[in-house]
Amino acid sequence: MASADELCYRPATVLEAMLRAKEISARELLQAHLDRIDAVNPAVNAIVTHTTELARAQAKAADDAAACGEFLGPLHGLPVAFKDNHLTKGIVTTFGSVARRDFVPDQDDVVVERMKAAGVVTLGKTNIPEFAAGGNTFNEVFGITRNPYDLSVTAGGSSGGAAAALAAGMHPIADGNDMGGSLRLPAGYCNVIGLRPSAGRVPVYPAGDSFAGLSVSGPMGRTVADVALLLSVMAGPDRRSPISLEEPGAVFAQVPDGGMRGKRIAFSVDLSGAVQVEPEVAEIVRAAAAFCEDAGADVEEACPDFAGADECFRTLRAWQFEATLGEFLDSYRDKVRPSLYANMDAGRTLTGPQVGRAAVLRTQLFHRMREFLDRYDALLLPVSPLPAFPADIQYPETVAGQQQPDYLGWMRAVCHVTVTGHPAVAMPAGFCSAGTPVGVQFVGRHRSERELLGLAAGFEAVTGFAKQRPTAI
Amino acid sequence: MASADELCYRPATVLEAMLRAKEISARELLQAHLDRIDAVNPAVNAIVTHTTELARAQAKAADDAAACGEFLGPLHGLPVAFKDNHLTKGIVTTFGSVARRDFVPDQDDVVVERMKAAGVVTLGKTNIPEFAAGGNTFNEVFGITRNPYDLSVTAGGSSGGAAAALAAGMHPIADGNDMGGSLRLPAGYCNVIGLRPSAGRVPVYPAGDSFAGLSVSGPMGRTVADVALLLSVMAGPDRRSPISLEEPGAVFAQVPDGGMRGKRIAFSVDLSGAVQVEPEVAEIVRAAAAFCEDAGADVEEACPDFAGADECFRTLRAWQFEATLGEFLDSYRDKVRPSLYANMDAGRTLTGPQVGRAAVLRTQLFHRMREFLDRYDALLLPVSPLPAFPADIQYPETVAGQQQPDYLGWMRAVCHVTVTGHPAVAMPAGFCSAGTPVGVQFVGRHRSERELLGLAAGFEAVTGFAKQRPTAI
Repeated sequence: MASADELCYRPATVLEAMLRAKEISARELLQAHLDRIDAVNPAVNAIVTHTTELARAQAKAADDAAACGEFLGPLHGLPVAFKDNHLTKGIVTTFGSVARRDFVPDQDDVVVERMKAAGVVTLGKTNIPEFAAGGNTFNEVFGITRNPYDLSVTAGGSSGGAAAALAAGMHPIADGNDMGGSLRLPAGYCNVIGLRPSAGRVPVYPAGDSFAGLSVSGPMGRTVADVALLLSVMAGPDRRSPISLEEPGAVFAQVPDGGMRGKRIAFSVDLSGAVQVEPEVAEIVRAAAAFCEDAGADVEEACPDFAGADECFRTLRAWQFEATLGEFLDSYRDKVRPSLYANMDAGRTLTGPQVGRAAVLRTQLFHRMREFLDRYDALLLPVSPLPAFPADIQYPETVAGQQQPDYLGWMRAVCHVTVTGHPAVAMPAGFCSAGTPVGVQFVGRHRSERELLGLAAGFEAVTGFAKQRPTAI
Repeated sequence: MASADELCYRPATVLEAMLRAKEISARELLQAHLDRIDAVNPAVNAIVTHTTELARAQAKAADDAAACGEFLGPLHGLPVAFKDNHLTKGIVTTFGSVARRDFVPDQDDVVVERMKAAGVVTLGKTNIPEFAAGGNTFNEVFGITRNPYDLSVTAGGSSGGAAAALAAGMHPIADGNDMGGSLRLPAGYCNVIGLRPSAGRVPVYPAGDSFAGLSVSGPMGRTVADVALLLSVMAGPDRRSPISLEEPGAVFAQVPDGGMRGKRIAFSVDLSGAVQVEPEVAEIVRAAAAFCEDAGADVEEACPDFAGADECFRTLRAWQFEATLGEFLDSYRDKVRPSLYANMDAGRTLTGPQVGRAAVLRTQLFHRMREFLDRYDALLLPVSPLPAFPADIQYPETVAGQQQPDYLGWMRAVCHVTVTGHPAVAMPAGFCSAGTPVGVQFVGRHRSERELLGLAAGFEAVTGFAKQRPTAI
């Protein structure tokens, strides 16, 4: 039998097959992960709430069912910790804020509900920045989540705990969500995969604004097949989300064959000058383009016009923040990170016409990307414009020597994609000179997650970066 | 053969069958409608731009195709005039405004494109209020559209020309759109049917804000089967609308059997006190509830809580108006109806948090209606709270003796339904003491247009009001 650590790096699809073939029990699989968590989590701090007794009971229930020839669902027996801004019934959900330190929800977020119904074993909760705002995972409740490839640097955020736990072998798949890159930035920094789906692909509930579709939930994993498996569980309609898509999740379970062959891939290292990017990241994006070519794609340097994306994202983010959290944060003003409160305050000074202009810009950006992707199958871009930065700074103030306006400045490559309304998958794409992972994102056609996963699998097949495990833990 | 006038009142489904059986040619059908338009349109003023030569050419093309055994599509040979705020390539599209008097679009709105592709013969354009704002159809370009049941009263709006032309036998089906009741108010006043679909059911393109989903396009007709036929052509995904639903339109072509039998219908004459309503309209709503019972439904007086709906609708409407039309109207300020400009100006003074609060209210109203419709199959409500008012007043200032705040006041029963995000169909439900039609609306479950049309057909079968033709023309 494989060593416990070896087991913890097997793909979810393989573990699931082993569980169904009874080569391993859910309890054994859980124990291997609990041992791994004991060994590496103290240094990484990715899983911040632990529900070990619940996990043992669920693993036993999975094994009992299997003993009767029944399997709980497509994720039968897989151990997973949930992102700490997804509600978990009966399990503390802090949102990374001392203002919510003791909050125990009485309901599950819809993705938690679906993953539980599909048979996962609940390990606990993964760390996030306070209210998931920002691309570095630290908060006053649980502290900093560190990068398993180099404990001195950030794991990214806001799904930083989820990504770091994946990279460190603490769970095989993870849930996340993404308004301004939260599924992509930590995936890029932790050498794992994060898919930001189209709005409505994964129902979001509960939500303060169910119609906006800017913040989406999505899957993370170490292989494309695992991300597809988790998407198949997360996706599909739910009456509680007015914008949820009707297509059943099951269509995503199998990654389409064909990979990159014959596909038209556009790439840009800096979104045609819309963002600054450090030379070694630019080099990795170019290398990724060459990998696409190696895999049989037609590759061309080209990019749609992102004019207006920065204004659009900043306006809609501040607006949504104020609308959904404003009242709550007011009552906890002294307990909330000042930069976060300032951000919400910015939403308070917006005018209606500014928000309206952002809505119109969003529409224009959607159409520009749509028309661009009439000519290409995907657009390859950087995720972060710089390698993972020190974990103890809040955010990088400069990129490629240029001063950034604030803590959103360095995140523009992902935020710009958000406002086009198109799905994007962050993929491992290499390592910078300091040895930490660097990711790229592929932006696909609206609602074409299946095709996008097929392309990602083609990229995965020729690169193999994802297989390089962290050495710092 | 039927008299020309008789022909003009046949359902679209019957006319389509006659065309396919070659009992009539598209040219004969067109001529009957042109004759009818000549006879009645001068008094009603429903069709305001006429494309007779184009119509003759299209009818000939339809006949030529039929001669080769080919039919152009599900609407082969049916004459239709398009609403004047739906873009028509090469045909003047005024939006009812002198500011757009000479505007000839170089593209079709997606519903026009689909209806043309389905084989319609283009009669021209139907009248609307200036920029479709308001429930009475008048403007300085074309004047007032009058009610075929009483030329002194309004046809309603904003799809007033479309509805009056249906009632007067000038076309068998019509396109419309609806933010605050524009498919329902004129249907109610003109004794025809108007369906406001769920957001995304009928793709909206082009649009200033493609994500909002408040203004939707939809079908109108004189029978439920005709509305279903037109919806089957209008509905289905389009990549140009980021919120369009994937379900193909064809699923709507057949109205489900079963009607009202065993269905649970809730009704309220005044939205539980949220709106004022005149006694004779309340009486007609109660009679409609009794008809549902006659048709085999379980009927109960019940209503969800509409608290916040007025604030939500007013805010989002003013906001969208300013965002999508503000700049344009500024450049034509002296040419625009003052009450319209004032409305847009109201959008200009909104704060971002007010718009955010409206977005949150919209979410709450969606969930309240969703939970209510877990217990009922549909909610029966009035369309307008008062009978059709004099055509030469802009809007009724009082309802049931109570002063209304402005020109949106009397329209609240339809606007309140809009912000719940649920589909609604306006049905003929009787006549007031003055002899003009009064409509009711059935609100159905989110995205359940098919079931809603089935209920409407059950109601149609027991009432028969729709068959009573106008006598004033």
